[in-house]
Amino acid sequence: MSKGRMEAFSDGVIAIIITIMVLELRVPEGSGLTALKPLLPVFLSYVLSFVILGIYWNNHHHLLQAAQQVNGRILWANLHLLFWLSLTPFVTGWMGENRFAAGPVALYGAVLWFAAFAYFLLSRALVAHHGHDSALASALGPNVKGRVSLVFYTIAIPLSLVNSWAAFAMYVLVAAMWFVPDRRIERTLAP
Amino acid sequence: MSKGRMEAFSDGVIAIIITIMVLELRVPEGSGLTALKPLLPVFLSYVLSFVILGIYWNNHHHLLQAAQQVNGRILWANLHLLFWLSLTPFVTGWMGENRFAAGPVALYGAVLWFAAFAYFLLSRALVAHHGHDSALASALGPNVKGRVSLVFYTIAIPLSLVNSWAAFAMYVLVAAMWFVPDRRIERTLAP
Amino acid sequence: MSKGRMEAFSDGVIAIIITIMVLELRVPEGSGLTALKPLLPVFLSYVLSFVILGIYWNNHHHLLQAAQQVNGRILWANLHLLFWLSLTPFVTGWMGENRFAAGPVALYGAVLWFAAFAYFLLSRALVAHHGHDSALASALGPNVKGRVSLVFYTIAIPLSLVNSWAAFAMYVLVAAMWFVPDRRIERTLAP
Amino acid sequence: MSKGRMEAFSDGVIAIIITIMVLELRVPEGSGLTALKPLLPVFLSYVLSFVILGIYWNNHHHLLQAAQQVNGRILWANLHLLFWLSLTPFVTGWMGENRFAAGPVALYGAVLWFAAFAYFLLSRALVAHHGHDSALASALGPNVKGRVSLVFYTIAIPLSLVNSWAAFAMYVLVAAMWFVPDRRIERTLAP
Repeated sequence: MSKGRMEAFSDGVIAIIITIMVLELRVPEGSGLTALKPLLPVFLSYVLSFVILGIYWNNHHHLLQAAQQVNGRILWANLHLLFWLSLTPFVTGWMGENRFAAGPVALYGAVLWFAAFAYFLLSRALVAHHGHDSALASALGPNVKGRVSLVFYTIAIPLSLVNSWAAFAMYVLVAAMWFVPDRRIERTLAP
Repeated sequence: MSKGRMEAFSDGVIAIIITIMVLELRVPEGSGLTALKPLLPVFLSYVLSFVILGIYWNNHHHLLQAAQQVNGRILWANLHLLFWLSLTPFVTGWMGENRFAAGPVALYGAVLWFAAFAYFLLSRALVAHHGHDSALASALGPNVKGRVSLVFYTIAIPLSLVNSWAAFAMYVLVAAMWFVPDRRIERTLAP
Repeated sequence: MSKGRMEAFSDGVIAIIITIMVLELRVPEGSGLTALKPLLPVFLSYVLSFVILGIYWNNHHHLLQAAQQVNGRILWANLHLLFWLSLTPFVTGWMGENRFAAGPVALYGAVLWFAAFAYFLLSRALVAHHGHDSALASALGPNVKGRVSLVFYTIAIPLSLVNSWAAFAMYVLVAAMWFVPDRRIERTLAP
Repeated sequence: MSKGRMEAFSDGVIAIIITIMVLELRVPEGSGLTALKPLLPVFLSYVLSFVILGIYWNNHHHLLQAAQQVNGRILWANLHLLFWLSLTPFVTGWMGENRFAAGPVALYGAVLWFAAFAYFLLSRALVAHHGHDSALASALGPNVKGRVSLVFYTIAIPLSLVNSWAAFAMYVLVAAMWFVPDRRIERTLAP
């Protein structure tokens, strides 16, 4: 089964998620620049989610470039990832509108945790299909970044109930760590 | 006529439907986790609809992979399917916001019934174009799953007026039955 | 310049328009089936607009299949068409929510008029680029249907101020006339 | 790394932005044509933003046609551009609903400024990757239009606080200047 249509569908879904998120930035009543002030936390959430979705798209792009074909399990692992990503606009809006209150920051982290886990499952499904000695498997390697992300999110979720800004800082840290696209794959695939 | 653009258009529409559905999950007022409680039925509806749309995309993918070309009738059969799928966000929101009340659950089932019927018509249009002795026709076979789905929905719609949870359970059952992508086609097309 | 990306962009825009239109079908308050009654005119508008956009996509598909390449003028003629189509969700919602009152039905017709005219300009830009003796030009022929549509809309717009249902019937008639994809092109391109 | 998926993703995001912008045109209460009058400034903003996004899509199309491949830096420069473009629906709605008041017109200009700057960075990232003596670099040339746009926006933003219509006229002027797709590239790539 060819991977082209799965790539196209994923691109479509991620493109829509990244774009409809801006609908949470509701047009304010007044026309003064002060009318924008209450939107600042929503904007900040939006920027973080935009970067995180950009990272997912970027890494997804790299991951599938290393893949040769897909099967039913991979299609569903991919839809599972898209499911968690599709919840981003909701948690982004909730976190922003409540100015980074404990509960919303925890839920935001939970959605990130599940998305990171779903990405991990997708990588595993791809490795299972291509073989543990495939170029894709050796390109992914021990997947340190993926494991570190999950550990960080696992710490940040309870932390958010104590200090939500510290949790938010951890989300930013994970995003910063992934900002560079997955060099492992680029390096291994290079001729 | 090539099938590429019809696939791309269908992917686009399904990707948008699956994603804008999340807009029915309205950001709640409070910041406590209790503020999320009234959203649970909407979330549950969302999960079911996400899975059902995932199944449609998956099977649509398989179905068109077996197809060689499309004609005007197939294009319209496809648009007819997309029409019913496009009503999913509306019925999902209505069912969730009314906590699985009888009327909305019945209407949800009716939309699923029409979508399943439209998928059946699309398969028939494809078989008519490719011939009853084509790889596509033998791959589809007697289409037991498609017929069972229609029977289940036909039972579930009146049932929902008596016991809406039993009807909901039947929708879940049909989804579970389709969860695995259409092995018939994969098997027949395999070299 | 290749036509691929223009096709993909148009498909994307039409897919989004056809899908976000369903957001005008607002989830009603009650759970009884009577709660749906006020939505009927919105639903009816939605069905007509869905069919009309399906026709545009279909004919656009055929038109560009006959085209070999595009230039700057064609790209802008295409964006001009997409602009008028993008207003469909707005006029569909306005017409439905006002139960086919005179003003909204007239405006709906005006948007259809401009879309039909934009499609006509796009055809002309394509013919100008491919030459009047090209396969595309002879495939389009005298473009009777396109001219008839414009005449019908020109009559329907003032008519809607007198009898909005008669105008609506004319919109349905034009859609019925176009329902079949453009046989002229299919016939000419057939081997 | 191939450029195909980056083009597809960009097309998707721009198609969604250009289309969801129409959701800012809220369906009015009354059915008389006078009910549309307060929507005129929103419509005017919509037209300008539609044209500007059309120009970006058009030039992006041309720019990437001249490119051979992309790397991580280019992917991020592209996402950076899409970020600023994604804010267009918000500032378009704010500007329209406040009938071109000073603050919203200034913010609209600021988003245009950042989008223009992001486009400039994307061009530079592409030139850096393809080499200063590449076809792409010589096709872009001294990029006079890009620089003029930035200068115009830089003047228009403070100007809007004095006379918002003059600033708006400058935005229209920049759009008019770009209306014609980038002939430089078309000319250089021509055989």
